[in-house]
Parts: sequence; structure tokens; C-alpha cells
Amino acid sequence: MEIGIVGGTGAEGRGLALRLARAGCRVLLGSRSVERARDAAAELRARAADVALEPCDNGAAFAAADFVLLTVPFAGVVEALGVHADRLRTSSVVVDVTVPIQFEKGQPPKLVELPEGSAAEHIRARLAPSVPLAAAFKTIPARLLSEIEKPLDCDELVCADTDDARRRTLELVQRLPGLRGVDAGTLEASRAIERMTLLAVTLNKRHRSHEARYRVLGI
Amino acid sequence: MEIGIVGGTGAEGRGLALRLARAGCRVLLGSRSVERARDAAAELRARAADVALEPCDNGAAFAAADFVLLTVPFAGVVEALGVHADRLRTSSVVVDVTVPIQFEKGQPPKLVELPEGSAAEHIRARLAPSVPLAAAFKTIPARLLSEIEKPLDCDELVCADTDDARRRTLELVQRLPGLRGVDAGTLEASRAIERMTLLAVTLNKRHRSHEARYRVLGI
Repeated sequence: MEIGIVGGTGAEGRGLALRLARAGCRVLLGSRSVERARDAAAELRARAADVALEPCDNGAAFAAADFVLLTVPFAGVVEALGVHADRLRTSSVVVDVTVPIQFEKGQPPKLVELPEGSAAEHIRARLAPSVPLAAAFKTIPARLLSEIEKPLDCDELVCADTDDARRRTLELVQRLPGLRGVDAGTLEASRAIERMTLLAVTLNKRHRSHEARYRVLGI
Repeated sequence: MEIGIVGGTGAEGRGLALRLARAGCRVLLGSRSVERARDAAAELRARAADVALEPCDNGAAFAAADFVLLTVPFAGVVEALGVHADRLRTSSVVVDVTVPIQFEKGQPPKLVELPEGSAAEHIRARLAPSVPLAAAFKTIPARLLSEIEKPLDCDELVCADTDDARRRTLELVQRLPGLRGVDAGTLEASRAIERMTLLAVTLNKRHRSHEARYRVLGI
């Protein structure tokens, strides 16, 4: 299983890279700067021996065989798609991990209003219809992801407009120990999911944690 | 503790009435029709002996001493406020339980777009600033609420713009066995919470359940 991580040097990208590599995936850790990707990969390899983790530029991450995870900040995702989307292989599913949260000094964080309703739908509108797109890993706190000795122990909501993209992404989620993938239906569910991420940020602040995350009971 | 339930004959209202009465609260079960309130109260009393549960019209429910729970369908809440809000006592907290979900035949359910961002904020804009308003009980499935032999076993997100309204409503939530109240900050959190209710409806449908609900881990 080959996974490209676009923007893999950020907190979210590093954590996912490390956990997916430890779960046996081959990870292409992409960055705009190959230098920074190399540094990040070296640091991650020092934390987990014998993992398949290759530094590369974002273009090479876009060309991964099975999954392409978009973990760049939301503000940079459209540009990254514009530059690299033609490198996507027909075999791969694009997984949107972005959340359009705006942090402004002295203000509570808020979501950027998007005409499509969510970041995932915003991205959907900018990809060729034939490209499979799912949303996942949006609600897990980045810092917790990168603390690999800690179990994730929560649910991860996965949505996509096609059954195939959803099923494959759910399988990917299930590879990570302690994570249950929950089928949340069409991409429109990302409107709720992205707001849940913002809510988790609020909860973390109010409750002095950095680990707020969710479980769905009763299903 | 005296609690008025506006629209108490609906599924949500009945379930809350029954569980709160069993937790020792005095419940004023309101309806537009006192007749229907009487029928509902008789039915609920048959299911739980020795509870303080009085049928009344919505106006009397608005005049309850400690809490006024708005459990009418969202489409009717503004009208109910217009008719009865002048009966609110200064001692009571209004708790918005509505979720503006629109069910249209053959369409997936969706949220009504509100200029204020959420039903709770919509209601806030229509109440005098001095009236304490909180949002709670939005994400618990109505049917599960009314199955009183079943434990709720989940978290309930509570938000309000004043510390006092939030604290008092959290205390109310904690009276129900199996429910943990989670302080979610200002009323703006209801934007996430109401979307979580819509997501729970979607999850119930996809997973053939009627019990989807949430727990927040890590706080």
C-alpha cells in the first residue's frame, strides 16, 4: 500500500506518516521543499525503526499508487491541486484532511465560509469528476497523532460520494490501531465533520487538553 | 426544581419530561392543546409511578420557575416565543432543544440555512438580552430518550453566552443518569452541535440504528 502525504512536514502530516508507516504502508512524505521532507523523514525514522518512509516533493506524493492525503493547510490546498493534480494516478484515492479553520489573534477560531459548504466539497469542485475523493482524519488532533506511543482510541468519520472511495478509505483508517472508521455517507457530511474539528479546538482550549476527539455510540 | 417543557407532547419533549421527572424534577408538560398535554402526561405517568408531572398549555410551561425547555419543532419556535415569551420568569433559564432539520420526501435531510448560523443563535436574536439562554439536549436521539429503560450513556454538549446559564444547564444535564454534560463554550458552538444532530440522523439511516449519539474523549 503506497500513500503520498502532501504537506507531510506539518504536524498532521508527520503524525499520519508515522502511524501509517508503522502500520506497514509505504509512505511518500511530500513537501514543497525536498530538503524539509528529508529532515522530517529523518526525524520520523529515528522514532520508528524499519519503516518505509521516503521524502519527496509534493508532486511525487501526488503520484502515489493508492492514496494521496492532502494535509497542507487549507489555504494552500487549491494551489497544490492546481500545480500537481495532473500527476494523480487513476489507481489512487485522494483523501482530504484539511479543515478551513481561521485563527486570528484575540478572536475565537472560526471556519472560513465556503460557497460549497465545506473544504471537502470545495476541493471536490476543483478535481476532475473521475478522481475519487474522500474526507477522513479531520477530527483527530494533530498533536495526538504525532505522539505515537499514545493510542488513538476513537472513531474516524469517513465520507465520500462514491461507495468505492468510501470503502477503500475506511479500510485505510482501520489499518491504524485504535481507530474505528465510521461510514458517514456522502461528502456533504464533511460540513458536520469540519465543524466538529472546530468544536474540538474549542473544547481543548476550555478543558486545557489537546486530545479532544469523538466516538459515536449506538451504531 | 421546576421545569417547563414547551411542546412537551412530541417525542423529544416526552422523553425529556419522563427522564427529568424520574430524576426528581417537577415537570410542567406544555402543549398548544391542554387536552393533548393531559393525554401525554397520563401516558407518561403510567410508565413511571410517583413522578411530578403536570399537564398545561405552553404559556404555563413558559412560566416555570427554573428551566424552560423549547422542544417544539424548529418551525414553530419563533411563533411560540412571540406568544409566550412575556411569561418567562427572571429566575429561569431558557434551554433551546430545537434542531432546524428539514425532511423532504426523496431528499436527504438537511439543515435550514439561518442567517444567525444556528437555531440557538436565531432564538437568541429573538429573546430579550436579559433572558438567559442555553442550548442542550440537541444531539440525543428522541426515540432513545423516550425508552427510559435504556441508559443514555453519552455526552451532552451544552453552550451558552453567559457562564451562569451554562453552569446551571450543565447541572440540569448531570441530573439525568448516564449523561455527562460537556461545557462547549459560547452559543456559537450550536453551529457544530446542530450539524452533529443532522449527522446522527444520517448515521442512523446508514447503520440501521436509532441510537447514534456522541462521546467526547480526551477531556
